[in-house]
Formats: sequence, C-alpha cells, structure tokens
Amino acid sequence: MFQTAYDVIVVGGGHAGAEAAAAAANLGSKTLLVTMNLQAIGQMSCNPAMGGIAKGQIVREIDALGGMSGIITDKTMIQFKMLNMSKGPAMWSPRAQSDRMRFAEEWRLSLERNHNVDFFQDMVSGLLIENNKVVGVKTGMGMTIRSKAVVLTNGTFLNGLIHVGEKQFGGGRMGEKQATGITEQLTSIGFESGRMKTGTPPRVDGRSLDFSKMEEQAGDENPGKFSYTQTPKLTKQRSCYITYTNQNVHDSLREGFDRSPMFNGAIQSTGPRYCPSIEDKINRFAERERHQIFAEPEGWDTIEYYVNGFSTSLPDDVQAKAIRMIPGFENAKIFRPGYAIEYDYFPPTQLKHTLETKLIDNLYFAGQINGTTGYEEAASQGLMAGINAHLKIHEKDPFILQRNDAYIGVLIDDLITKGTEEPYRMFTSRAEYRILLRQDNADERLTPLSHAIGLSTEDRMKRLEEKYTKAAQMVEHLETTSILPNQINPTIEERGGSPLNQSVKMVNVLTRPEVQLSDITKLESIQDYISQNELDEEELEQVEVQVKYKGYIRKEKDNADKLKRLENLRIPKDFDYSQVKSISTEARQKFEKIRPETIAQASRISGVSPSDISILLIFMGR
Amino acid sequence: MFQTAYDVIVVGGGHAGAEAAAAAANLGSKTLLVTMNLQAIGQMSCNPAMGGIAKGQIVREIDALGGMSGIITDKTMIQFKMLNMSKGPAMWSPRAQSDRMRFAEEWRLSLERNHNVDFFQDMVSGLLIENNKVVGVKTGMGMTIRSKAVVLTNGTFLNGLIHVGEKQFGGGRMGEKQATGITEQLTSIGFESGRMKTGTPPRVDGRSLDFSKMEEQAGDENPGKFSYTQTPKLTKQRSCYITYTNQNVHDSLREGFDRSPMFNGAIQSTGPRYCPSIEDKINRFAERERHQIFAEPEGWDTIEYYVNGFSTSLPDDVQAKAIRMIPGFENAKIFRPGYAIEYDYFPPTQLKHTLETKLIDNLYFAGQINGTTGYEEAASQGLMAGINAHLKIHEKDPFILQRNDAYIGVLIDDLITKGTEEPYRMFTSRAEYRILLRQDNADERLTPLSHAIGLSTEDRMKRLEEKYTKAAQMVEHLETTSILPNQINPTIEERGGSPLNQSVKMVNVLTRPEVQLSDITKLESIQDYISQNELDEEELEQVEVQVKYKGYIRKEKDNADKLKRLENLRIPKDFDYSQVKSISTEARQKFEKIRPETIAQASRISGVSPSDISILLIFMGR
Repeated sequence: MFQTAYDVIVVGGGHAGAEAAAAAANLGSKTLLVTMNLQAIGQMSCNPAMGGIAKGQIVREIDALGGMSGIITDKTMIQFKMLNMSKGPAMWSPRAQSDRMRFAEEWRLSLERNHNVDFFQDMVSGLLIENNKVVGVKTGMGMTIRSKAVVLTNGTFLNGLIHVGEKQFGGGRMGEKQATGITEQLTSIGFESGRMKTGTPPRVDGRSLDFSKMEEQAGDENPGKFSYTQTPKLTKQRSCYITYTNQNVHDSLREGFDRSPMFNGAIQSTGPRYCPSIEDKINRFAERERHQIFAEPEGWDTIEYYVNGFSTSLPDDVQAKAIRMIPGFENAKIFRPGYAIEYDYFPPTQLKHTLETKLIDNLYFAGQINGTTGYEEAASQGLMAGINAHLKIHEKDPFILQRNDAYIGVLIDDLITKGTEEPYRMFTSRAEYRILLRQDNADERLTPLSHAIGLSTEDRMKRLEEKYTKAAQMVEHLETTSILPNQINPTIEERGGSPLNQSVKMVNVLTRPEVQLSDITKLESIQDYISQNELDEEELEQVEVQVKYKGYIRKEKDNADKLKRLENLRIPKDFDYSQVKSISTEARQKFEKIRPETIAQASRISGVSPSDISILLIFMGR
Repeated sequence: MFQTAYDVIVVGGGHAGAEAAAAAANLGSKTLLVTMNLQAIGQMSCNPAMGGIAKGQIVREIDALGGMSGIITDKTMIQFKMLNMSKGPAMWSPRAQSDRMRFAEEWRLSLERNHNVDFFQDMVSGLLIENNKVVGVKTGMGMTIRSKAVVLTNGTFLNGLIHVGEKQFGGGRMGEKQATGITEQLTSIGFESGRMKTGTPPRVDGRSLDFSKMEEQAGDENPGKFSYTQTPKLTKQRSCYITYTNQNVHDSLREGFDRSPMFNGAIQSTGPRYCPSIEDKINRFAERERHQIFAEPEGWDTIEYYVNGFSTSLPDDVQAKAIRMIPGFENAKIFRPGYAIEYDYFPPTQLKHTLETKLIDNLYFAGQINGTTGYEEAASQGLMAGINAHLKIHEKDPFILQRNDAYIGVLIDDLITKGTEEPYRMFTSRAEYRILLRQDNADERLTPLSHAIGLSTEDRMKRLEEKYTKAAQMVEHLETTSILPNQINPTIEERGGSPLNQSVKMVNVLTRPEVQLSDITKLESIQDYISQNELDEEELEQVEVQVKYKGYIRKEKDNADKLKRLENLRIPKDFDYSQVKSISTEARQKFEKIRPETIAQASRISGVSPSDISILLIFMGR
C-alpha cells in the first residue's frame, strides 16, 4: 500500500506526535503520521489551556526551536495572561486559554500544509524490528509500513482503561478506543512497562452557571503571546471565573468514597501529584476548608466550560451532587462527567538523551508514554524526538539540550536519569539555573542551536539578531545617558525610595527595585530614542531584564559554566563500577542500572552523594 | 444527577439526532441530546455533501418545515450545483459540497445556541420502560435520566462491526466505539431487529492527485442555496474532479475478491443497492468498462479528498493498488482506507406514521435505525420524530405529511407501510406526484403546515406570502401584457421555433419550450416591472415554473386530490380482515401484519392488488 519507505513514522497525533511530525518533516524527513482518528489531531484531551508556570517557558522554548505549539496557541487562544509578573523575570510565565476546536483544527491544517507530512488513519499494533533496529510499524488492519525511524507518542491510549465510579471500560479517551499490541510486543523483547493514571474534570453547560457568584478573571490588558514570530495579538478576550469548594462539597464527595476507584482499590497506579483529583485533595488535605475552582470557557463561541480543579473519577451522581454545592454551580448541568484513565507507560530510564530507546535503535518515545503529564511536556519531547530521529537517520550528531540550555533539557535529563514513579510535570524549581531559563530569552538560548541543525529559519535568526542588537544598543544608551534628579525623584519618592542627590546614569537608577523601565521611557528623550530605533515591546522587555537582573544572570552563568565542564566529562559506556569499591552500594547499583553518560548526569541521580562523585572523579583520573 | 425529567431525550447527535433535538427544542420541549462523543455532533460519516437528486428536495423540505439542515449546509458549503437543470422543474435538485469540519462545528454551535437543548456525553445502553411507555434512558455509566419521550437515532452504532478485508472489529465509525445494550433490550420485549451494511470509500491526500488528468467539475456560475431564509450566498467555490476506473482497476480489485468480506461470507447483511461498493459494481455489472469516480475536496482548506464512487471493504493493500490505476490517482496516498460496517436496524413497519413505535408509547426511531441510508433521509426523519415527540407529550395532534405533501411524506409512508429489506434511499420515482414535490415550492407546501404547529416562524410565513403574492402578481402581469412579434421572433427563430404572426400575451409565448423567462425579462418594460416590484431570483423562478408547467401541475393536483380522499378513508384499528373472504391470502396476511391506517396506505402495500382494495372498499360500505 505504501509505495516507499518513510524516513520517520510518528505514531499518534497529540501534542507530542504533532510536534514530532512537524519537526522531522521541517528538517526534510519524509514523515508519516499514523493516528487512530484523523479528526482528533491536536486534540486537547484535558484542559483548554497552554502554558502556565514553567510550562509557559517550555512553549516559548518550543517556539524558539522552530516547533509549532506557540504559533498554534497564538492563533487560537481566547485569553492570555503573563503569570507571576510581581516576581522576578525567571518566574514570568505565559499562559493562554485556548479554543479547543480551533486549536485542533489549526494543528491539523498546519500539518497538512507541510509537504513532507503524510497521514494515515489506523491503529499501530506493533513494530517491525530487525537486528534490534526498528524498521517500521504494523497496523491493526494488518498493514506493514516501513521507515528508518519510529516515534511512539501513544498518550493515554496504550491499554487505556477508563474509570467512572465503579464502572470501568476500555478506551484511550472517552468515546475513543484504546490501542493494543505495542506494550505486549515491547515487554516481550525486554522493555519494562508500568501503569499510570490521570484524570479529567467534568465539563458543564455555561448557561447553567451563575457567574455573578464567582470572581471574574480577565486576560491581561495588553496581552502577550507565545511565538517569537509575527503571529497576531489578541484584540478581544474571554474571561475565566474563580470560585471555591466548601465543607458541604467535601462532605458530599466523601459520601462517594466507598465507590471511588481511587480508594476502593480499582486504581492501583499513580496519578499526577500536582494535578490531583478533588477527592484526593480533600482526602490528603483534610484540614483545608476550600479549594479553588476555575470555570474556563472552551472556546470563542461554545457554551461548554471546563471545571479546572475538579478532576474526579467518583460516580457521576456524586460528581453532580457535589458540584452543585459550589457557589455559582447551584444549577450546573453536566456535559460530560469527569473520569480517570489508566494507561501503560515505559519508565524513561530506558531512553537516551535523544529520547531514543537504549534497547531498540531508531525507536523514540515522547510524551505520556515516558511517564510525563502536560501538553507542554509532551510537545517538547515530541519536538526533540522528531529532531533526533531525523538527525540519526541522516547520520548527524544528536541534538541534546543541557540543563542550563532549557527547561526541555532539564525535563529530558530528569526523565532519563531519575526516571519517574508518578506522572512527571515541570516546575521552575526543577531547573538549577532558572534565572537563565526565562520565557523572554528562549530565542537567544535556543534559536541559534536550532538554526545550526537547519530547523529554525533564517528569518528567525535575523529577527533574533535584530532584537538582541537593538536591546544591547539601548542598554548601552542607558549606560551612557544621565538622568537628572528632578526627572525621576517624584516617582522614587512616591514609591518610598530615597531620592537622587545628583544626576546618575540611567542604568543605575533602573537597577533600583522601585524604578521600572516604563518610568524612564516616559522621558521625551528616551521616547525619541525608542521611536528612532523602532524598539518594540519585546525588545524593551529585554532591555529591562538585562539591566535590572544583570547581577543575578551573571552569577547563574558562572554556575552553569561549571556544570557544563562536568557535563562534558563522559563516563565510558562499559565502565565497570564494581572496581570502584569505596562508593556507596546504592550509588553503585544506580550507576549500573542507569549507566549515566556523564559525571554531571551521575551527580543528579537521587541517592548519589557528592562524595560518591568525588570518588568516581578520582577513579577516572581527575 | 439530572435534577428534573426532560420532555424529550434524543439519543445520537448525527443528522437525525441533531434535527430531532432542534425541532423538539424549538417547539418548546426541554430536550436532552445524549451522544457518545460531543466532539462528533453533526459529523458527516461518509461523503462531504448534502442534497442531490430527490435528496436536495428533502433538504429544501426540511428547511421549509423549520429544520436546520439547509441553514447549516448554506453556511458551510464550498460548492453548489443545481442538478438536472436541463429537465423539468420537478427534477431540479440542489446539491452542495460541504466543509466537513465546519458543517459539524456549525451544527454543534447551532444546537448550543438553542436554550431548550441540553447536552450529555455518555452511551445510552437501555431504555426505562413502564407500562409499555418509555420514561427515560439508562447509560453506560449507570445513570438513569427520565423523560416523557425518547428519540433513538443510533445510526451505524448499534453493535457496529467494521470490516476491512479479512479484518473485523467493533466500532460505530472508524476509531469510535460501538453502542451496545439497546438492541438486546428491545428484542427481548418483542421488537424485531435485523442487520444492514453500509460502506465508505478511502480518503486520499489531494497533494498526491494529478488533477490535470481529470475533468474539472465547477460549481454553478450563479450558485443557489438550500434555505428559504436569508443565509449567505457563496462568493467563491471549490471544484470537484471526475475520472474513471478501467479494466486494470477492475482486474486489480478482482484479485482481492477472495479476501473480500462481501464475497467470502463475512458480511451477510444487505448494503445500499444504489450506493454499491466498487467491488459490487464490477461484480454485478461485469460488462461495464468503467465507472465514474469523483474526487471531492473535504473542505475549504484541507488537502483531504473523498473518493466518491470507490466505496470498498477490500483489504487495504488491494484498495491502494487498484486506486493507483485510476487516471490522476497514479501516486495517490491514502489517508484512510475504505471500510464496510454492519449494524442493527429495526424494520420500520414497527412504527406509526409519526415514527413512534407501535409497541412502546412515546418511543421514536429516526435515521439508519429505521433501515434508511443518506444524511437527508436521516435528517428528515429526525425532524419529524422530534416534532411528533413534542406534540404527543403535549397532547396535540400528530404531524403527518401525506405522500402528496412532501418527499418526507413518501419516505415515511414507504418505510412504515412497505418496510425495507435494504438501506432505503429516496428517488424522485418513489413519489407519485413529483411534479408537485419540487425544490422550488417546498416552502409553499410545508411552511404553513409547520407554522400551524408553531415551528416555522412568523418571519418565514411573511417571506412565503410575499414570495407567492409577488409571483402571482407577475404571472397576472404576463397574462395581461402582450408581446410584439419583433420583440421575441429573433429568439424564437434562432432556436428553431415557428415565429409569431401577431402579438400575443406574454404567458402564451412563455409556454413554448424554446422560450425562457429570461428572454422576456430582457424587455425594458418587464425589467421596469421587476425593479419596481423588487422581484428576486427565487420569485422569478417561481413565475417561470408556474407559467411553463401550469398544465402538468394542475393535472397532478387533481390526481393528488383523489388520493387524498382515499387517504382520509380510515380503516378501524381492530378491523377483522378474516371476515373479508374474497381478498387474496397475501393481501390478508400483509394487512394483518402491517395494519394500514387508511385505504390509501393499504393500496401501497406491495403484493396488494387494486381488486383487493375494491373488495375492501365494498366491505367497508363504499
């Protein structure tokens, strides 16, 4: 049926699969996307939102690397907020509410416009493997399709089992069939697999909600966006609404606990700790009087609302009774009940940094199959797997991001080094050098790397150079231009700072916490400078960050450089840890299991102490 | 979970279910639409098109009755053609190519805007029945939802079984789960059920087709539309492309016949005779050298094409090999293979004219569950079932269309009287009085009836009155205004007619076959009349039809009136046919089984002769 072999076959069309296909294809690989349902490409299975703390940074990184998620989000969002603006720029995190239907449609049409992406609708039920190398896939309808590499992005579909109260049934998402065959084949050839669990809240009819009892949460007045490219800015937005559970809600939910698959033993696998079900929250935090609930619109026109914070697999009658005790939800009509789903994953310590499996050459895993949770985590893995699949089959060097390059580097290094016992999500705290990994500079950090392998376009590089050149020139201007006390003292005094006695360079006043760049750009001379040099908002943001946080950033860079030196210190593949007698037994066992590629990776394995590393370094002749 | 009982529960969100929900809700019933997948409301499961011969008339009728299909189609079509324009107006049939995604989205949003429609995503697995009356539904998740009436529109989902070559798997559509429980329950309480089969062709990547080897089929230069309301007209269109199979294609397909579920016994049930699979066509019409194939775009932007005429359940490798022998398809890439699906239906002789079941009160069936095929047939049944469910629970008279009112009347009367052994589709030949049942006058025929029950709006009635008043006035103007020989003779002579010798009334020259209204409206005086009286295209079409086909129409009306008198002659419910000794045994058996409600219905039962009817009439005292 398929006339020629593909370079890359991507299995699955969710966030991971779509990014993987786009990346491999944009690099020039003839790519086939195989999915069980072509109508469901780019489907947001859970909340209609992209970004958030640490996750928003990842979307910016995906965009800087030439991925698509940022562009798709910008084109289809209905609200934008930059979170954490009261904190330092390392914490600024973009977040968007998406139009669920438009998001999926835009993904599908974007992939269709890619001349290197072909599509096929079928269930992949197995892999073609020859001499420990994957050479294609087998499908449910009995087809074989050959390729040089395969990226598996099966999400929650592998032997998916849906739970609602005491009811259980097979499915990959509600209303869609589960996928079978792959886990069975992979475990038979030596892969370790496990089960994870995730859940989703009910969706309700917005017409049945009383928003006057909730707190409106509007988008930013001056909404930003995710992509560094020329995507449009929002000119109108839709609001979300905040409300809270209460003791009545909790009591009502507790009445259903004996019928809860979470508590009656039906679900044994672990769910995402930081995105717990409502029953989990009231069980684990029994002292909490209330939990926050967000009513989020699912799109521009639809009446459907997502009930963020109310993920549950309690029986639907319990869900309905309890939800109606939430202020504003008294008459809520449920569109779809919440449910939990269990699915197979493969502990990601079985992967290399490229996301290629250690056991089978040219086979890559991305997304929930690696035990992660979150659209952004999935999309970034898909992007990296797609890139590396392309590079490998074209005999090029792998593309690996270090922990000080990107959250994506942190994510993958954590996964393959430490593995994960529960659905892994990103936090800013996971990054050692988060002051470097900001949402504002993802382009500076990553676009040159991506451009070097041929993914980020020339246009992106030009834009990047322009942005940082203009920002640097303006920083220099601020360094060499003085400000008079009377130009800034009123602002300083209003904010409780100590006034200037004499004129100082503008950069110096800008480093004061009570002064912002916008206070200085009010000055006519600076306004003239900005308009003459055509600086846009993004460039001004860069100026402010570089000036105000110069010290922090420099210190982080030094630390990161040190890390990099360790990172470059490779441990031989066949290193015999049994020779190193004086390291702890735990460290030796973990080294033997994980076989870290570098000293830096070894140092991050949980249970490995600094002294173990010192001994190892000595043994290696350092 | 559901706080109050609904008036009407509609099970299924396809063409039948969506129309049923909209109709019941628009009449004022609190309506719940329950579907297995809220993302799939209004999904076109097969070809991306609405209308066609006889089917286009049905869509116009649905619109005239206040249904939604015409409006949805107008808003989302990418091409419009009025078929059969070279024939008489009874044969004129509107047909649209639709944007598949937009069509579904528009249906969903239209239903969302309806304040009487609620939504719930779950599988209905059974009915609540008390004292032979349906009082609600049970769902797969174990919910019970009460209602006064239930409309079942399960499409191909009831125990759906998908076939591709020798592969079989459960499913309601490719990638979606089948529905279970309803058939089992209904047969246990005495319903008769059967299996039917339908199929769909492969979808291909338009980028892989060579359109230069096909014949372009553009839309109409001046595209019309379906709705009598003020929906927008198309300003741009997309073309379809025509190509043909050949002996190589057929030989290649034949090689797979031993693996075909159609021929190896795997599929026993009957498929739609007039929409056969390609293997069926080359098998039944072995002498035909070629069959027509249409490449139809699936939307405005997508690259996906529907291969109309190539429906198949042969193994996918056979599909792929054969399709590539079609001119223009040499390098075709298949997006989704074709497949066949078997599903449960309920012989529709178990229904009343209202589409209510005879066995269970307040339970209605619409669409493929009644053994029909086609979006239009399904939508019209949904509309009628939704209307009648509302009327019944509000203790109002049923709404029944006669065979001379509408194709919808023919459809339902055929179904419940004759039943069907194979998927039933509409043809103009099924209507005895098709000259009355035109696409141009569906509003005149049906909007007053619909307005009388409160469904068609006041606006629609006003528009209707205006249209027919203005048309009638212009007909009168043409009847009283003369045309001079020199004004029309050049046209007549050019077309080979015999010229006028003296001036005649305009209507008289217009009845000549070689003269069209547009020849007369060229005259300055008529142009003035049209602009003064503001006649639009639809009104002018009406003028032409009424003048040119006056004789035919009058004769048909007389025949129809005769039929109506028989139609009004009711047979008592408990009539004892065993008393009528002289009718044929076959007629007696069929009367006893079907229990026709009127003499007219009795006369249309296959196997019943005119003499049987005469005897029956005599026995009934006529």
